Amino acid sequence: MIGALITTGAIDFLVQEYTYLAVFSAVFTVILGVTVDLQEMSVKDSPTNAPYTAIAFLIGSLTSILAGYIGMRIAVYTNTRTTYGCCEDTHIGFQSAFRGGQVLGFVLVGLALLVLELIMICFKATWFDGAFDALNKPTEEQTAELVRRLFELVAGYGLGGSSVALFGRVGGGIYTKAADVGADLVGKTLKDLREDDPSNPGTIADNVGDNVGDIAGMGADLFGSLAESTCAALVVSSTSYELIMQPDALYFPLMITSAGIIASFFSVLLAECSRVTEANVQTVLKLQLLYSTVIMSVFLIPVVSLLPVTFSLPGHDDISQWTAYGCILFGLWSGMIIGFSTEYYTSNAYGPTLYLVKNCEQGPAPNVIQGLALGYLSCIIPIGCLTATIGFSFKTCGMYGIGLSALGMLGSLPVALTIDGYGPIADNAGGIAEMSGLPPRIREQTDALDAAGNTTAAIGKGFAIGSACLVGLALFGAFNTRVNATEVDILSPVPFCGLMVGAMLPYAFSAMTMKAVGDAANEMMEFIKEDFARTSEIKRANKDAGRAEHEGAEPNYQKCISISTQASLKMMIAPGALVLLSPLVAGFVFGPQAVAGLLAGIIVSGIQVAISASNTGGAWDNCKKEIEKQRQDMMKEAR
Amino acid sequence: MIGALITTGAIDFLVQEYTYLAVFSAVFTVILGVTVDLQEMSVKDSPTNAPYTAIAFLIGSLTSILAGYIGMRIAVYTNTRTTYGCCEDTHIGFQSAFRGGQVLGFVLVGLALLVLELIMICFKATWFDGAFDALNKPTEEQTAELVRRLFELVAGYGLGGSSVALFGRVGGGIYTKAADVGADLVGKTLKDLREDDPSNPGTIADNVGDNVGDIAGMGADLFGSLAESTCAALVVSSTSYELIMQPDALYFPLMITSAGIIASFFSVLLAECSRVTEANVQTVLKLQLLYSTVIMSVFLIPVVSLLPVTFSLPGHDDISQWTAYGCILFGLWSGMIIGFSTEYYTSNAYGPTLYLVKNCEQGPAPNVIQGLALGYLSCIIPIGCLTATIGFSFKTCGMYGIGLSALGMLGSLPVALTIDGYGPIADNAGGIAEMSGLPPRIREQTDALDAAGNTTAAIGKGFAIGSACLVGLALFGAFNTRVNATEVDILSPVPFCGLMVGAMLPYAFSAMTMKAVGDAANEMMEFIKEDFARTSEIKRANKDAGRAEHEGAEPNYQKCISISTQASLKMMIAPGALVLLSPLVAGFVFGPQAVAGLLAGIIVSGIQVAISASNTGGAWDNCKKEIEKQRQDMMKEAR
Repeated sequence: MIGALITTGAIDFLVQEYTYLAVFSAVFTVILGVTVDLQEMSVKDSPTNAPYTAIAFLIGSLTSILAGYIGMRIAVYTNTRTTYGCCEDTHIGFQSAFRGGQVLGFVLVGLALLVLELIMICFKATWFDGAFDALNKPTEEQTAELVRRLFELVAGYGLGGSSVALFGRVGGGIYTKAADVGADLVGKTLKDLREDDPSNPGTIADNVGDNVGDIAGMGADLFGSLAESTCAALVVSSTSYELIMQPDALYFPLMITSAGIIASFFSVLLAECSRVTEANVQTVLKLQLLYSTVIMSVFLIPVVSLLPVTFSLPGHDDISQWTAYGCILFGLWSGMIIGFSTEYYTSNAYGPTLYLVKNCEQGPAPNVIQGLALGYLSCIIPIGCLTATIGFSFKTCGMYGIGLSALGMLGSLPVALTIDGYGPIADNAGGIAEMSGLPPRIREQTDALDAAGNTTAAIGKGFAIGSACLVGLALFGAFNTRVNATEVDILSPVPFCGLMVGAMLPYAFSAMTMKAVGDAANEMMEFIKEDFARTSEIKRANKDAGRAEHEGAEPNYQKCISISTQASLKMMIAPGALVLLSPLVAGFVFGPQAVAGLLAGIIVSGIQVAISASNTGGAWDNCKKEIEKQRQDMMKEAR
Repeated sequence: MIGALITTGAIDFLVQEYTYLAVFSAVFTVILGVTVDLQEMSVKDSPTNAPYTAIAFLIGSLTSILAGYIGMRIAVYTNTRTTYGCCEDTHIGFQSAFRGGQVLGFVLVGLALLVLELIMICFKATWFDGAFDALNKPTEEQTAELVRRLFELVAGYGLGGSSVALFGRVGGGIYTKAADVGADLVGKTLKDLREDDPSNPGTIADNVGDNVGDIAGMGADLFGSLAESTCAALVVSSTSYELIMQPDALYFPLMITSAGIIASFFSVLLAECSRVTEANVQTVLKLQLLYSTVIMSVFLIPVVSLLPVTFSLPGHDDISQWTAYGCILFGLWSGMIIGFSTEYYTSNAYGPTLYLVKNCEQGPAPNVIQGLALGYLSCIIPIGCLTATIGFSFKTCGMYGIGLSALGMLGSLPVALTIDGYGPIADNAGGIAEMSGLPPRIREQTDALDAAGNTTAAIGKGFAIGSACLVGLALFGAFNTRVNATEVDILSPVPFCGLMVGAMLPYAFSAMTMKAVGDAANEMMEFIKEDFARTSEIKRANKDAGRAEHEGAEPNYQKCISISTQASLKMMIAPGALVLLSPLVAGFVFGPQAVAGLLAGIIVSGIQVAISASNTGGAWDNCKKEIEKQRQDMMKEAR
């Protein structure tokens, strides 16, 4: 029954959200068709591009929506099975949740790759072959130009994926956090209820939120990153004559992701072979990241031989295939280090979060100060890794190197998504156990699974942020190539002002989303208090009348779901528009140099805000769990 | 008695801090003498520079120390007088505090200008005239080169001022916040004492902190900004041939500050003429900023005529004197808008903070979410103003324009320091009233003065941050001129990596200082709890023995002061070293382009962190005061 409520709530929200997004995608598709596709044609006086970019964009959006939807369906299907599994044994519960995550990870990455491949085959058969024939025995140079333009048309796919991801992430994020904060605060602080107590009307919304935010939103987000980085790498590789002449080499970026899928396959096999208990579940999940990284490093060696022994790119001569391998490795291993550093800062197994726990003894204020300091401090290692990766890749292979390192980092994406999707599934399984009134022993098992999931979800976020930085930079490079900007000099007024404003935008964006979460959570808390008063009244009346206490005293789950849904749909528009419009305004008013400055500012400032906020939040979350655990242990000892 | 305790505590701390700083300055002076001064000579084979930069640096450090010390002495002297004043009338209390602030503002700005003037006169009489004679009838070009080098030697003054300011601000900041958090939290949350209750041993440390952090630290900080921006403007103006040929024009930057002093003089006169009551005190203080800005805009008109009608700078021909006036005005008015925007976001008279108050009804969590969102949101207006100022000044007059706009913003510095210094004085006056057991009526008057001071202190911080951004940019320009970097291209790996790491440094810095505050506050809370237990024990024993209750139950103020002192002196070293060493390391390992990227990253990221943190903090502080006020009002009504 509870599983069904969650499923219905999640589907309701996604249907509404995707209706908005479908309209948005349709409008944007037309805009792209009219501006980008038609403009290209009129400028170049060669075979029409219309409406290929638009089509690619539309397919990208739809695939992203599909990816989110599939992820959500898998998650809500697996929730209940995990709870049942825990009734038998921790290992079986773990397997359900972990396999749910696997389906999410492999389906999503596979889908991204498959659809991209299909688009390329179709575009090749129609646009490319048509253009090729029209030119009547084109020269090699003309062929190269056609390939370059083919990839630019395909790049619409990445844009579509990440546009939908933007709204999916923001809308889903507001939903999940509003419900989480609202339900938790009123439940714990004001009414002293247990988390997921069924008489709290906000619990279902909280569980729905885990699915639409952390599963559908995160899935769409990482889908967008993968699609963007593959497209960016393809566009850049088409600027190299040697690569174009050798199709295997040209499609090398796709092979990186394929190698990642196979490597991830072997690593999850290793997890399947181990016997999971409450004690080792966190280790099993963590090791996944290490396994996939090591296996992929080996698997890439034969794949790299697809590249010419040496090749050149504009501005970079004689790049060895092993240098390209180096770029991929830098990305891959940086991703792993970022993941583990995130874990170090946010898990309650290590110093930083335990120190936070100790600080809570003095009340909330030291916790806030030290929590923010922890998040700020946690920027150092990831920024160091990213800087090293960017420095090496950029220096040796230019923007192609950045694209490769982004793909390298995303190579372990199937595994990252597996352990990331595992978290909300285990979380929900706990919720279902509590709400279904199963014995405390089951809840303890789901809690153990959930605690491990909290940390791995933080790893997933670190991963998403790191790859977003590299992808953003690769797109920044693509933009500059496209507008023929050979330099962006911050000793000139326009780029510097762009940099200033760009560095501010992540703050404006975060302010909007945080305010949205706060406001929606407030609204929910007000309602929960009212609803609680109403049900208490009914229960009292029932008691007086000698009826069964709970008769007619059902908490109003539906209203809480609708508060979160309405708030997130309404409030995702402003931050989304800020992201989409600010580069356009900067470009039309101040020109491409302003946009370049703006983008650079957004990247370098946004990554700090993202890492620090994500880790502060993760540490606070686990700090709360640790204190609850300590309190329970103390109560047990007292008994 | 209490005034004396505060004075002793403050002097003790400053003596210890300044001992460290004197050693640091001496070492750095020698380093500068050996590296900069001697190197210049060996490169250019002309009259020796040694040890002029070193001397200027040493004088700058000492002046900064002196400025901080004078400010602190004035403040502790005025504290008690303000309390006495409030015994008579709010107006008289206000006058004492306000005049204390005035002395701080005018002495500090006057001192900065006077010492700089003296250095220039001395250096001209010795180094310049010597070099001039040695060249034996030098050409005009050689003379211009000598002037340029004279100003570079003088620029050591700015470096000295801001090096000391760095440590003064960090050390003082850790001191005041650790004492504030420690005393407040344990006093309010754990023991339910009133703020400044004399039986809380942390109160004296808290009051000392106001003086060493908000007065001495802030004074040294703004002194550093003023000295730096004047020196930067002088160095840049010496690259213009027309300006060098016309001494009045060359010294124009000094005239801007002088005009500001006179304009500020008239605006404080206007405040002296108005009758201050509890109701209008905030308005009187706020209007100061408007008055000084308007008056200075007018006063600058005759001053601008000192500049040639048109002049040229490298890369900028035919600059009209009115364009230069425009740069100054942009800075001046931006400063005012930033000040008022800060007030809007942090004062409990306006929506944002009142909304925060409303959110506190749901507990601390929504307050944290909305408070952070408020700070993030408050970046938009200041960044908009600064970007407009930088865009206009940079585009029309290059780095000279940036220097002028920085000086324009600092033009109202005497008034800004007056209202900024007023805050801690009024705050301390309230503390003294409480601790001396004066009647509640007096405390209400000091509270009214204090509440107004809280907001104006926030204005002062906004001001300091905005001018620091412009000064930082001017120095960034000076650095690039000096290393002959004509461009910093963020499409190259090295500057981009510098930018990434630079954007991270403010986070690392903030993490260190916040952790220092949290740790020191914790230590203090632990001690206060112990001490409270001790005195309670004695009081109980006294009661049992029929003695006077307080006999021998003096709280251990001294220990709290020493905890704050030790913590801040120990913990200011790491963040200070981070700031000083990171550009050096980047420069030696990766070259000047890395430093340029690093500096740009620090500026654009640091300003966002600074504004958001300062305004979140200010809003939280006033939110607390508002809730206390509402609670008191409710209790009064209940009676």
